[in-house]
Amino acid sequence: MTTIAKGAKCVTLVNVFVVEPAKQQRLVDVLVEATETTMRRLPGFMSANIHRGLDGTRVANYAQWRSVEDFQAMLKNPEAIPHMQQAAALASSFDPKLYEVVEVCNIHEQQG
Amino acid sequence: MTTIAKGAKCVTLVNVFVVEPAKQQRLVDVLVEATETTMRRLPGFMSANIHRGLDGTRVANYAQWRSVEDFQAMLKNPEAIPHMQQAAALASSFDPKLYEVVEVCNIHEQQG
Repeated sequence: MTTIAKGAKCVTLVNVFVVEPAKQQRLVDVLVEATETTMRRLPGFMSANIHRGLDGTRVANYAQWRSVEDFQAMLKNPEAIPHMQQAAALASSFDPKLYEVVEVCNIHEQQG
Repeated sequence: MTTIAKGAKCVTLVNVFVVEPAKQQRLVDVLVEATETTMRRLPGFMSANIHRGLDGTRVANYAQWRSVEDFQAMLKNPEAIPHMQQAAALASSFDPKLYEVVEVCNIHEQQG
Protein backbone atom coordinates (compact mmCIF):
# COMPACT_ATOMS: atom_id res chain seq x y z
CA MET A 1 0.00 0.00 0.00
CA THR A 2 1.27 3.44 -0.95
CA THR A 3 0.30 6.61 0.88
CA ILE A 4 -0.15 10.16 -0.40
CA ALA A 5 0.30 12.82 2.27
CA LYS A 6 0.85 16.56 2.35
CA GLY A 7 4.32 17.41 3.63
CA ALA A 8 5.70 13.92 2.96
CA LYS A 9 9.45 13.86 2.41
CA CYS A 10 9.38 12.79 -1.20
CA VAL A 11 8.93 14.02 -4.74
CA THR A 12 6.25 12.49 -6.94
CA LEU A 13 6.69 11.46 -10.55
CA VAL A 14 3.47 11.43 -12.54
CA ASN A 15 4.02 9.98 -16.01
CA VAL A 16 1.03 9.44 -18.29
CA PHE A 17 1.79 7.35 -21.37
CA VAL A 18 -0.51 7.57 -24.39
CA VAL A 19 -0.57 4.16 -26.04
CA GLU A 20 -2.41 2.19 -28.70
CA PRO A 21 -4.82 -0.21 -26.98
CA ALA A 22 -3.09 -3.18 -28.62
CA LYS A 23 0.15 -2.20 -26.87
CA GLN A 24 -1.30 -1.28 -23.46
CA GLN A 25 -0.73 -4.63 -21.73
CA ARG A 26 2.84 -4.88 -23.02
CA LEU A 27 3.57 -1.39 -21.69
CA VAL A 28 2.11 -2.30 -18.29
CA ASP A 29 4.32 -5.40 -18.25
CA VAL A 30 7.44 -3.40 -19.15
CA LEU A 31 6.80 -0.87 -16.35
CA VAL A 32 6.09 -3.59 -13.77
CA GLU A 33 9.22 -5.47 -14.80
CA ALA A 34 11.33 -2.29 -14.66
CA THR A 35 10.06 -1.62 -11.14
CA GLU A 36 10.54 -5.14 -9.85
CA THR A 37 13.94 -5.84 -11.35
CA THR A 38 15.65 -2.46 -11.22
CA MET A 39 13.92 0.66 -9.89
CA ARG A 40 13.06 -0.71 -6.44
CA ARG A 41 16.73 -1.36 -5.74
CA LEU A 42 17.92 2.15 -6.63
CA PRO A 43 18.78 4.73 -3.95
CA GLY A 44 15.81 6.90 -3.03
CA PHE A 45 13.11 4.72 -4.58
CA MET A 46 9.99 4.87 -2.42
CA SER A 47 7.17 3.54 -4.58
CA ALA A 48 5.87 2.92 -8.08
CA ASN A 49 2.16 2.53 -8.74
CA ILE A 50 1.23 1.39 -12.23
CA HIS A 51 -2.25 2.22 -13.52
CA ARG A 52 -4.11 0.92 -16.58
CA GLY A 53 -6.43 3.39 -18.33
CA LEU A 54 -9.95 1.96 -18.49
CA ASP A 55 -10.39 3.11 -22.11
CA GLY A 56 -7.24 1.29 -23.24
CA THR A 57 -5.36 4.38 -24.43
CA ARG A 58 -3.36 5.31 -21.32
CA VAL A 59 -0.94 3.85 -18.79
CA ALA A 60 0.07 5.98 -15.81
CA ASN A 61 2.93 5.62 -13.37
CA TYR A 62 2.55 7.42 -10.03
CA ALA A 63 5.93 7.03 -8.37
CA GLN A 64 7.60 8.48 -5.29
CA TRP A 65 11.31 9.23 -4.87
CA ARG A 66 13.09 10.55 -1.80
CA SER A 67 14.49 13.58 -3.64
CA VAL A 68 14.89 15.26 -7.01
CA GLU A 69 18.55 14.23 -6.92
CA ASP A 70 17.70 10.54 -6.46
CA PHE A 71 15.27 10.72 -9.37
CA GLN A 72 17.81 12.42 -11.61
CA ALA A 73 20.46 9.84 -10.69
CA MET A 74 18.01 7.11 -11.73
CA LEU A 75 17.59 8.78 -15.14
CA LYS A 76 21.34 8.34 -15.72
CA ASN A 77 21.59 4.83 -14.29
CA PRO A 78 22.84 2.33 -16.92
CA GLU A 79 20.49 -0.38 -15.62
CA ALA A 80 17.43 1.90 -15.67
CA ILE A 81 17.95 3.42 -19.12
CA PRO A 82 17.08 0.31 -21.21
CA HIS A 83 13.80 -0.11 -19.29
CA MET A 84 12.85 3.52 -19.95
CA GLN A 85 13.73 3.17 -23.62
CA GLN A 86 11.60 0.05 -23.89
CA ALA A 87 8.61 1.86 -22.36
CA ALA A 88 9.13 4.93 -24.53
CA ALA A 89 9.22 2.78 -27.68
CA LEU A 90 5.77 1.36 -26.90
CA ALA A 91 4.12 4.74 -26.26
CA SER A 92 2.86 7.40 -28.66
CA SER A 93 3.81 10.02 -26.05
CA PHE A 94 4.65 10.29 -22.36
CA ASP A 95 5.06 13.16 -19.92
CA PRO A 96 7.37 12.46 -16.98
CA LYS A 97 7.20 15.38 -14.55
CA LEU A 98 8.01 15.81 -10.88
CA TYR A 99 5.43 17.15 -8.44
CA GLU A 100 4.86 18.00 -4.81
CA VAL A 101 1.60 17.23 -3.02
CA VAL A 102 -0.20 20.47 -2.13
CA GLU A 103 -3.59 19.20 -0.96
CA VAL A 104 -5.03 15.88 0.17
CA CYS A 105 -8.75 15.56 0.78
CA ASN A 106 -10.36 12.21 1.47
CA ILE A 107 -13.41 10.69 3.06
CA HIS A 108 -11.47 9.41 6.07
CA GLU A 109 -10.67 13.01 7.02
CA GLN A 110 -14.30 13.97 6.62
CA GLN A 111 -15.41 11.16 8.92
CA GLY A 112 -12.63 11.65 11.49
CA MET B 1 -3.69 10.57 4.03
CA THR B 2 -4.74 8.77 0.84
CA THR B 3 -3.81 5.18 0.09
CA ILE B 4 -3.11 3.44 -3.23
CA ALA B 5 -3.71 -0.29 -3.18
CA LYS B 6 -4.13 -3.04 -5.74
CA GLY B 7 -7.67 -4.40 -5.73
CA ALA B 8 -9.12 -1.36 -3.94
CA LYS B 9 -12.79 -0.81 -4.67
CA CYS B 10 -12.43 2.47 -6.52
CA VAL B 11 -11.59 3.99 -9.88
CA THR B 12 -8.78 6.50 -10.15
CA LEU B 13 -8.90 9.74 -12.09
CA VAL B 14 -5.51 11.02 -13.19
CA ASN B 15 -5.79 14.46 -14.75
CA VAL B 16 -2.62 16.31 -15.75
CA PHE B 17 -3.16 19.98 -16.60
CA VAL B 18 -0.57 21.79 -18.73
CA VAL B 19 -0.48 25.40 -17.55
CA GLU B 20 1.51 28.60 -17.96
CA PRO B 21 3.64 29.07 -14.83
CA ALA B 22 1.96 32.42 -14.13
CA LYS B 23 -1.38 30.62 -13.85
CA GLN B 24 -0.23 27.57 -11.89
CA GLN B 25 -1.07 28.82 -8.40
CA ARG B 26 -4.50 30.02 -9.49
CA LEU B 27 -5.23 26.60 -11.00
CA VAL B 28 -4.14 24.87 -7.79
CA ASP B 29 -6.46 27.19 -5.84
CA VAL B 30 -9.40 26.46 -8.16
CA LEU B 31 -8.94 22.69 -7.81
CA VAL B 32 -8.58 22.86 -4.03
CA GLU B 33 -11.67 25.05 -3.76
CA ALA B 34 -13.66 22.73 -6.05
CA THR B 35 -12.71 19.78 -3.86
CA GLU B 36 -13.44 21.46 -0.54
CA THR B 37 -16.71 23.14 -1.48
CA THR B 38 -18.29 20.64 -3.87
CA MET B 39 -16.57 17.41 -4.89
CA ARG B 40 -16.10 15.99 -1.39
CA ARG B 41 -19.86 16.13 -0.77
CA LEU B 42 -20.81 14.23 -3.95
CA PRO B 43 -21.82 10.55 -3.85
CA GLY B 44 -18.88 8.23 -4.41
CA PHE B 45 -16.13 10.79 -3.76
CA MET B 46 -13.20 9.06 -2.02
CA SER B 47 -10.24 11.41 -2.39
CA ALA B 48 -8.65 14.22 -4.36
CA ASN B 49 -4.91 14.80 -4.23
CA ILE B 50 -3.70 18.00 -5.87
CA HIS B 51 -0.09 18.15 -7.05
CA ARG B 52 2.02 21.12 -8.17
CA GLY B 53 4.58 20.45 -10.91
CA LEU B 54 8.04 21.48 -9.72
CA ASP B 55 8.87 23.11 -13.08
CA GLY B 56 5.77 25.33 -12.94
CA THR B 57 4.12 23.96 -16.09
CA ARG B 58 1.88 21.23 -14.67
CA VAL B 59 -0.83 20.63 -12.08
CA ALA B 60 -2.03 17.07 -11.50
CA ASN B 61 -5.12 15.77 -9.76
CA TYR B 62 -4.98 12.16 -8.55
CA ALA B 63 -8.53 11.42 -7.39
CA GLN B 64 -10.43 8.32 -6.33
CA TRP B 65 -14.13 7.63 -6.91
CA ARG B 66 -16.16 4.64 -5.77
CA SER B 67 -17.25 3.75 -9.31
CA VAL B 68 -17.27 4.86 -12.93
CA GLU B 69 -20.97 5.70 -12.51
CA ASP B 70 -20.29 8.02 -9.56
CA PHE B 71 -17.58 9.79 -11.55
CA GLN B 72 -19.85 10.20 -14.58
CA ALA B 73 -22.66 11.54 -12.39
CA MET B 74 -20.22 14.15 -11.03
CA LEU B 75 -19.41 15.26 -14.60
CA LYS B 76 -23.10 16.13 -15.06
CA ASN B 77 -23.61 17.71 -11.63
CA PRO B 78 -24.69 21.37 -11.94
CA GLU B 79 -22.60 22.34 -8.92
CA ALA B 80 -19.47 20.61 -10.22
CA ILE B 81 -19.60 21.90 -13.81
CA PRO B 82 -18.65 25.56 -13.10
CA HIS B 83 -15.59 24.41 -11.12
CA MET B 84 -14.45 22.19 -13.98
CA GLN B 85 -15.00 24.99 -16.50
CA GLN B 86 -12.96 27.37 -14.34
CA ALA B 87 -10.07 24.89 -14.19
CA ALA B 88 -10.26 24.17 -17.91
CA ALA B 89 -10.12 27.90 -18.73
CA LEU B 90 -6.82 28.26 -16.85
CA ALA B 91 -5.11 25.31 -18.56
CA SER B 92 -3.52 24.97 -22.00
CA SER B 93 -4.62 21.32 -22.01
CA PHE B 94 -5.80 18.63 -19.62
CA ASP B 95 -6.32 14.89 -19.84
CA PRO B 96 -8.94 13.46 -17.48
CA LYS B 97 -8.88 9.67 -17.71
CA LEU B 98 -10.02 6.86 -15.44
CA TYR B 99 -7.64 4.12 -14.35
CA GLU B 100 -7.39 0.97 -12.27
CA VAL B 101 -4.35 0.18 -10.16
CA VAL B 102 -2.51 -2.84 -11.56
CA GLU B 103 0.70 -2.85 -9.53
CA VAL B 104 1.90 -1.27 -6.30
CA CYS B 105 5.54 -1.59 -5.30
CA ASN B 106 6.94 0.31 -2.34
CA ILE B 107 9.78 0.21 0.14
CA HIS B 108 7.50 -0.86 3.00
CA GLU B 109 6.76 -4.09 1.13
CA GLN B 110 10.47 -4.64 0.54
CA GLN B 111 11.20 -4.24 4.23
CA GLY B 112 8.20 -6.25 5.40
